[in-house]
Amino acid sequence: MDVTLAAGSAWTDPACPVARTVDLIGDRWSLLIIRDAMDGATTFTEFHQRLGIARNILTDRLRKLVEHGILDKGAATDGRRHTYRLTEAGQDLFTAVVALRQWGERHAFAPDEPHSVLVDDQGRQLPRLHPLGQDGAPLSVEASHVRKTALPRFR
Amino acid sequence: MDVTLAAGSAWTDPACPVARTVDLIGDRWSLLIIRDAMDGATTFTEFHQRLGIARNILTDRLRKLVEHGILDKGAATDGRRHTYRLTEAGQDLFTAVVALRQWGERHAFAPDEPHSVLVDDQGRQLPRLHPLGQDGAPLSVEASHVRKTALPRFR
Repeated sequence: MDVTLAAGSAWTDPACPVARTVDLIGDRWSLLIIRDAMDGATTFTEFHQRLGIARNILTDRLRKLVEHGILDKGAATDGRRHTYRLTEAGQDLFTAVVALRQWGERHAFAPDEPHSVLVDDQGRQLPRLHPLGQDGAPLSVEASHVRKTALPRFR
Repeated sequence: MDVTLAAGSAWTDPACPVARTVDLIGDRWSLLIIRDAMDGATTFTEFHQRLGIARNILTDRLRKLVEHGILDKGAATDGRRHTYRLTEAGQDLFTAVVALRQWGERHAFAPDEPHSVLVDDQGRQLPRLHPLGQDGAPLSVEASHVRKTALPRFR
């Protein structure tokens, strides 16, 4: 477990991995800060300029993402500015951000409406991400279900 | 474009598909309502029992998800209870929900801590989802970048 809620907080639904993730990053600004960190933003000023949000909200969200283990806070080489970089767990949110992006591309734009695109080193757009079954074929939501696992007994 | 913000609202960052998605569903309760709809919940009572949230918050989020085109609201066959079912765009959020779930499984649980699992019709866990390049090899966040696309001129 390399990420965690702040001391004193409780998970909304402790046995569900979706719910734990959402407790940690399921907030509009947190998700956009993670997006910008993936795209190279590291300083308060850079996040502030890209997001255009109130400074106190940005300060709060950066602090929470550091507490949760998504961002690492460090001093810049000139010793004045703090930098924020994704931890390994934060970088691993790439899959989720790509999934959110591709859904937006498919459903939230008119056909002729331009939008930014995520490309690889050769400038090619990423193929569509889709859950696959063990046989490698795309798996639909109807063909899957959640299996509850018992919570541990008190020891 | 089959989903949209409510009348009078504005996109946070109109050219970014991640931001549009987050404007529509980037809220803790909305994401958990979508999770439960994928797992078979259809009535207000079912969502309320699974989520344990205040009724006024649930009412608000269900209304917004209907407005945004993620849920369809219909009358049940007995004519008394409304039902909420994912639209095609809502069902297509499956990839994003799986990505959020798998990240939580990897990072938000201790090794011996039990959690629910998503399984296919044969009870097998889904393979790990990962963005791939055009060559079919896993693509890292460092090997990709966002290419801005110009917004349309005013006509």
